[in-house]
Amino acid sequence: SQEPAFGNRGMTLEEDINDTNEHYLVMNKAVIHKKPTPVQIVKVDYPKRSAATIKEAYFKQASTTDYNGIYKGKYIDFEAKETKNKTSFPLSNLHDHQVKHMKQVNEHGGISFLIVRFSLLNETFLLPSMKLFSYWESQYNGGRKSIPYSDIKEAGHLIPFKFQAKVDYLDVLDQLYF
Amino acid sequence: SQEPAFGNRGMTLEEDINDTNEHYLVMNKAVIHKKPTPVQIVKVDYPKRSAATIKEAYFKQASTTDYNGIYKGKYIDFEAKETKNKTSFPLSNLHDHQVKHMKQVNEHGGISFLIVRFSLLNETFLLPSMKLFSYWESQYNGGRKSIPYSDIKEAGHLIPFKFQAKVDYLDVLDQLYF
Ligand SMILES: [Mg+2]
Ligand SMILES: [Mg+2]
Repeated sequence: SQEPAFGNRGMTLEEDINDTNEHYLVMNKAVIHKKPTPVQIVKVDYPKRSAATIKEAYFKQASTTDYNGIYKGKYIDFEAKETKNKTSFPLSNLHDHQVKHMKQVNEHGGISFLIVRFSLLNETFLLPSMKLFSYWESQYNGGRKSIPYSDIKEAGHLIPFKFQAKVDYLDVLDQLYF
Repeated sequence: SQEPAFGNRGMTLEEDINDTNEHYLVMNKAVIHKKPTPVQIVKVDYPKRSAATIKEAYFKQASTTDYNGIYKGKYIDFEAKETKNKTSFPLSNLHDHQVKHMKQVNEHGGISFLIVRFSLLNETFLLPSMKLFSYWESQYNGGRKSIPYSDIKEAGHLIPFKFQAKVDYLDVLDQLYF
């Protein structure tokens, strides 16, 4: 169950997920890693007797999602986002190629989803990508540009907070897919 | 079959694999991507009216392998290396945590391997990670610090060069695992 009363304050969703993945790895439950932040490197110095220093670089848009790996023989792929919005999740947090990537993953037999944290409510949900797609498409057909909190509560799954697995999303996957 | 006679000159192994993966994606055969180069970002400028500029950063050692994704429902994970050595592949090209990662992938039901290109011979091999592990361990027990070319030719699988799939490793995986 979600326990907002202890721990976790000031930790970003990314930090919590990285800790969780580290715990899964140590417990030999799953092998899931965050991909490095994509960076376009423009200028590098190679000083004598010390490490190469990147002197000019820019953040690039990711071509896929942030996390992937393997769990119980299945390919796992997800994006994680937190919002300070209390009433909805703005779709502008995602990019078209990320959503396209999730569709490709599903087509090839993988499991893809979104983890959304409403920071101010201290609630974190897993939203299967199939549920995301209809909201994603309808925004281009005059639909709303965000997913209401109430819809995520309904179509998504509250991810339990555990002491060792702060975002215990495998617990939700077990209920949904295994 | 390998056709050193056309194309491909001056392309790095990484470029060839990226092209191959792009072809697989377009053909809807597999969803496999290279992970971004891991970078430790130290200093970022946020100029008004233009993109954030990374002013100081360092290359970090990768904690996993370079490529992963999904093919026919299976989790795929590999590292790619090229060497100018003609007689052996030096194990110093790999790191301990990369090999450990490959073991974890296998344990969880994924397929992991090494792609090795002998640049000067213009030959590229797929070596299943199970074959790699024994060489990896024996280097710590007085064994040699490299894998002989002849052993890779024997234990590995020549990856065919195709016009559209310059490093057609799925062709080898089909023979080995599907
Ligand atoms: Mg992200
Ligand atoms: Mg590498």
